[in-house]
Amino acid sequence: MAFKVHGIAASTAVARVLACLHEKDLEYEIVPIDPRTKENKKETFLLLNPFGQVPAFEDGDLKLFESRAITQYLAHAYAHNGNQLVIQDHKKMAIVSVWMEVEVQKFDAVGSKLTYELAFNPLRGNPINEAVVEENMEKLIKILDVYEAKLAESKYLAGDCFTLADLHHLPVMHHLMNTKVKAVFDERPHVSSWSTDILARPAWIKVAELQKPYFEAAAAGLAAKK
Amino acid sequence: MAFKVHGIAASTAVARVLACLHEKDLEYEIVPIDPRTKENKKETFLLLNPFGQVPAFEDGDLKLFESRAITQYLAHAYAHNGNQLVIQDHKKMAIVSVWMEVEVQKFDAVGSKLTYELAFNPLRGNPINEAVVEENMEKLIKILDVYEAKLAESKYLAGDCFTLADLHHLPVMHHLMNTKVKAVFDERPHVSSWSTDILARPAWIKVAELQKPYFEAAAAGLAAKK
Repeated sequence: MAFKVHGIAASTAVARVLACLHEKDLEYEIVPIDPRTKENKKETFLLLNPFGQVPAFEDGDLKLFESRAITQYLAHAYAHNGNQLVIQDHKKMAIVSVWMEVEVQKFDAVGSKLTYELAFNPLRGNPINEAVVEENMEKLIKILDVYEAKLAESKYLAGDCFTLADLHHLPVMHHLMNTKVKAVFDERPHVSSWSTDILARPAWIKVAELQKPYFEAAAAGLAAKK
Repeated sequence: MAFKVHGIAASTAVARVLACLHEKDLEYEIVPIDPRTKENKKETFLLLNPFGQVPAFEDGDLKLFESRAITQYLAHAYAHNGNQLVIQDHKKMAIVSVWMEVEVQKFDAVGSKLTYELAFNPLRGNPINEAVVEENMEKLIKILDVYEAKLAESKYLAGDCFTLADLHHLPVMHHLMNTKVKAVFDERPHVSSWSTDILARPAWIKVAELQKPYFEAAAAGLAAKK
């Protein structure tokens, strides 16, 4: 039976899970739950995720939510499918865990706010809050300085192999590359090579293709309003 | 060789690691790095954690940071010591992962702000920002409503056993219990039983004892100023 992903590819958290499924070469079915129509707040969806956020996920009788918990489950439980995204050795896996924590607590905290302001607000015809942008740009610069030093030592964040620690960055990083934040990546040679490398992975390119119709429709809708 | 924990027990993130070490019955040595004196921003410490935050951790040649990455490493690599805090079965472990994500992204995001305002600011003689308190109290109520429903089904967040998903809550929850936020826990019978149960674990009581001198000294310092 195929895995079920409840959500839409346009969501960064859903895209994180889809990227993992494609890396692992696992078939899945999308059950379209669109946060724009508040389907995620309905009783039936709350049975899958009591916090009412996409994605929710089903593997037979196992029901999960939280994108990073889902990717970790897939990477461990389907270790022999597709590309390896975790490491069996405890010490090496601990380094993956460190950088997964850095992603969610440092990068995503800042990157999601920049994505919202610089990618989503213009697409919705909403004004950009420049104070939020400035504050988070400053924070991102400090974070990417640490990444630059790390990526000067190893090709990927947790060593010489692509892992979930890298993959978790993709959905937000993809959006940032279409904004002025790209310059912050470009100014750091190792960060720039790393982001170019991981955004070009075939699994991510497939997910980005699934996202396109949503953002094209939003842009067309905005153009029609003007 | 004993593990080295760089930091002080008064830090919630350090306390999280110490709670795990006591649960696992592992000996450790504290290397006192006190954020109040900015020792965590010195070059020697930045070699252990480039983000300059406590704790940093050493197990022989393995150097880690990020408290939740350290606890996961200890729980997996020292599975046969002390109390089990993770589960070998992939599906059951996935549920632990879900609630570890909920802790860091939902509970801690809100609970840390409330701890800062209601526990730390009074101890430092600083005013409480009531707007921040109100906003985060509202958020915490919604989060604990979900916890209440979950804890009506199982004794602990990820099932019938205490795991890292519960343990990660302890340091912030411990502080909240000395503030008006305690009422939000007490009003929910299953949340109340759960928090009472996990705060009474011998491992946590040892960590709380290590924290006491710091908070007593801060209170005495404040009283002397008045």
